[in-house]
Amino acid sequence: MDLVAAPARLSTTSATFEAEFKARLHWSADTDAAIEQRVADILADVQRRGDEAVLDYTRRFDGLEAAALKDLELSQADFKAAFDSLPAAQRAALQDAAARVRLYHEAQKKACGESWSYRDEDGTLLGQKVTPLDRVGIYVPGGKAAYPSSLLMNAIPAHVAGVGEIIMVVPTPAKGSVATGGAGGQSSGKGERNVLVLAAAHVAGVTRAFTIGGAQAVAALAYGTQTVPAVDKITGPGNAYVAAAKRRVFGTVGIDMIAGPSEILVLADGSTPPDWVAMDLFSQAEHDELAQSILLCPDAAYIAAVQAEIDRLLPQMPRAAIIAKSLNGRGALIHTRSMEEACAISNRIAPEHLEVSSREPHRWEPLLKHAGAIFLGAYTSESLGDYCAGPNHVLPTSGTARFSSPLGVYDFQKRSSLIEVSEAGAQKLGLIAAELAYGEGLQAHAQAAEMRLKR
Amino acid sequence: MDLVAAPARLSTTSATFEAEFKARLHWSADTDAAIEQRVADILADVQRRGDEAVLDYTRRFDGLEAAALKDLELSQADFKAAFDSLPAAQRAALQDAAARVRLYHEAQKKACGESWSYRDEDGTLLGQKVTPLDRVGIYVPGGKAAYPSSLLMNAIPAHVAGVGEIIMVVPTPAKGSVATGGAGGQSSGKGERNVLVLAAAHVAGVTRAFTIGGAQAVAALAYGTQTVPAVDKITGPGNAYVAAAKRRVFGTVGIDMIAGPSEILVLADGSTPPDWVAMDLFSQAEHDELAQSILLCPDAAYIAAVQAEIDRLLPQMPRAAIIAKSLNGRGALIHTRSMEEACAISNRIAPEHLEVSSREPHRWEPLLKHAGAIFLGAYTSESLGDYCAGPNHVLPTSGTARFSSPLGVYDFQKRSSLIEVSEAGAQKLGLIAAELAYGEGLQAHAQAAEMRLKR
Repeated sequence: MDLVAAPARLSTTSATFEAEFKARLHWSADTDAAIEQRVADILADVQRRGDEAVLDYTRRFDGLEAAALKDLELSQADFKAAFDSLPAAQRAALQDAAARVRLYHEAQKKACGESWSYRDEDGTLLGQKVTPLDRVGIYVPGGKAAYPSSLLMNAIPAHVAGVGEIIMVVPTPAKGSVATGGAGGQSSGKGERNVLVLAAAHVAGVTRAFTIGGAQAVAALAYGTQTVPAVDKITGPGNAYVAAAKRRVFGTVGIDMIAGPSEILVLADGSTPPDWVAMDLFSQAEHDELAQSILLCPDAAYIAAVQAEIDRLLPQMPRAAIIAKSLNGRGALIHTRSMEEACAISNRIAPEHLEVSSREPHRWEPLLKHAGAIFLGAYTSESLGDYCAGPNHVLPTSGTARFSSPLGVYDFQKRSSLIEVSEAGAQKLGLIAAELAYGEGLQAHAQAAEMRLKR
Repeated sequence: MDLVAAPARLSTTSATFEAEFKARLHWSADTDAAIEQRVADILADVQRRGDEAVLDYTRRFDGLEAAALKDLELSQADFKAAFDSLPAAQRAALQDAAARVRLYHEAQKKACGESWSYRDEDGTLLGQKVTPLDRVGIYVPGGKAAYPSSLLMNAIPAHVAGVGEIIMVVPTPAKGSVATGGAGGQSSGKGERNVLVLAAAHVAGVTRAFTIGGAQAVAALAYGTQTVPAVDKITGPGNAYVAAAKRRVFGTVGIDMIAGPSEILVLADGSTPPDWVAMDLFSQAEHDELAQSILLCPDAAYIAAVQAEIDRLLPQMPRAAIIAKSLNGRGALIHTRSMEEACAISNRIAPEHLEVSSREPHRWEPLLKHAGAIFLGAYTSESLGDYCAGPNHVLPTSGTARFSSPLGVYDFQKRSSLIEVSEAGAQKLGLIAAELAYGEGLQAHAQAAEMRLKR
């Protein structure tokens, strides 16, 4: 195999930099009208026919036969058996990762997820009560892209938040089914379950689970069916059908962000072994041909050294073809005038993963405004964060870190304002409210305030 | 005028309660395919033609002529002049309300909007950095529904969060224009500005403002034009076109919730003067014929007393026609077996505004799981919260309080995870990460972790 991975070489001093930079960054989540219509039909059908519709679509798309939806429910015993079947090292790794993720999210809850209130000088109480969601649904993709770590990252913050029930859906398409890219019709009739995902469900603590997927699973969670309970929010990644379905049910239930391709940006001052950086760029590129890996560095010789390591390491990678396609199509090694300029460019990109591969990470961190997660120093490879450092690996992509945040405990909580106006407070506030309400032409508002005034 | 306002009388002991209750609650934000297509076209056109497209639509829908988009920009002097033109009492009320709203949101920022981090026993740093959004857009509806209080409630939390620039858009449709319900063509060519809104912009501190509205204004904020800067998030209420546009630009920018009709639910134990409760029900009903006002009470005689007050007070209300239509169409007075049952029903509704009109509000508050804002005790009329108590009046509607929260400082911030793995930490975490990464078939992830292990 004679693969070459040659990310675009850009320099900020070049006259063509702006145009080349924009062209590299461009990515658009075009919505496909045919998918949209198909998904709208599936949602309406599941809302109308419930279980029967879900069974029909599961038969058609996943090649999975079942007489009743309850036959597609997994049990706690299934999770336990999967966990017990793993080698000891894998069991321990799952448990250690889960423990660290739990610890971090407990700290997060304490830092920003507790109720608060105060009383003002009139004795009026003001605050917010923070409560968990009652029931959430977690979508776990089936087949090759089924990542047990994603299940941990979705279920654990929900648990820490205090969510009462966590309902998992995970398609188990039969080989040869439409969902696995087969022509359909030659399916084995038996879905392929991912043992690691079921083991992760045991470790994370999933309440109930169904082997359904696609838009039909999203619909079942959003509207509820005879068998699948309706949830309050749906999180977790999925294909274009799942993404379209989540967008459409938003409002009926909450959803997390719709994720684009994964991205890493490495800010390097040249002090990190270049093979470490090359491998970090690979670890994003191996996800997906559309994934984006970018290096920003003021040291041209170091950039050349990283490219040399890319050339050296690529042939030994099992996923070399995907890595090469991703780096060639969307990767970039950008020579900057300075680390300061590199930080400014990073802020324009607002990357999902941002490695500050420098001897002085705390010098640059304050300059970095927008990123899903910031990995400080050479030892902090993004892959440690993906699995077990503790913070969530579900992060905003495609520049949405400008306005959104990692998945967290706060996504499984909601807030209610608390107001208790004292009699004294009502005298003062009533005059202000009445004045403004009359100004807006809302006389009932004004009179409701005035009725509380002492005559 | 012989208006009658007779909310539905339901009782939880009735055999038909469930059906009647569900029918009353039903509300569906049906999307209109024609509006969707129109909005998609406008967004694409503004993205392509920028200023020129915005000017064209403003001419067509608002009857407002301008040679250049900069002619539709309002200045700080315009805001100041509007503020100075108000009567002293109105100026003071605006300033007092703003000061209280600011104080509350500063407390909110302190309680749940600060960066945090900790180091574990290996010296590994874990935490989250909280940063403000750079630039946000606030949509303020024009014409009759232009509420200066809404501008305060959107702009002040953005300010407290530390947002750099707040861009306001507020349509000023000319009389007789399409936007004001006129046939178009007979427009005065000059938009009608709302003095109170401009004064509120002065008090709240708006950076820039344009007299544009509709889907074209949302597009200008989301994509940017030659004159209007692109923002990171758009908040604020609007009509069906604005709502559809916000849904479509979600992902390019952040948006707040799409609001449904306003709602109030009063839980009463019969201790509050019945005219106060009647007026509180009116104050929601006067917003909109689709607004929903519900009373839950275990005391049948009290319910009758509230209905008597409704009959007595209705004729004197300037907005009596809207109130009557809202109460007749969507209102309900529900007789419950107990306050406990009333709390349980309230949780099923998850109302936007929830008044606990009881001598013992703190007895019932812990039973209330889902609500946008909870108003405790007889003195806490919802209208005080709408204007000046301090908490935000932008609240989740249509049952979305099950999974979403009042607008707050947190909506104008985002979080970035911080991870700094120590050399010692990398030895421990590297083994866990590599084990799981090999299990998921992601070898570059595994090798990136392994490279950091000491040989």
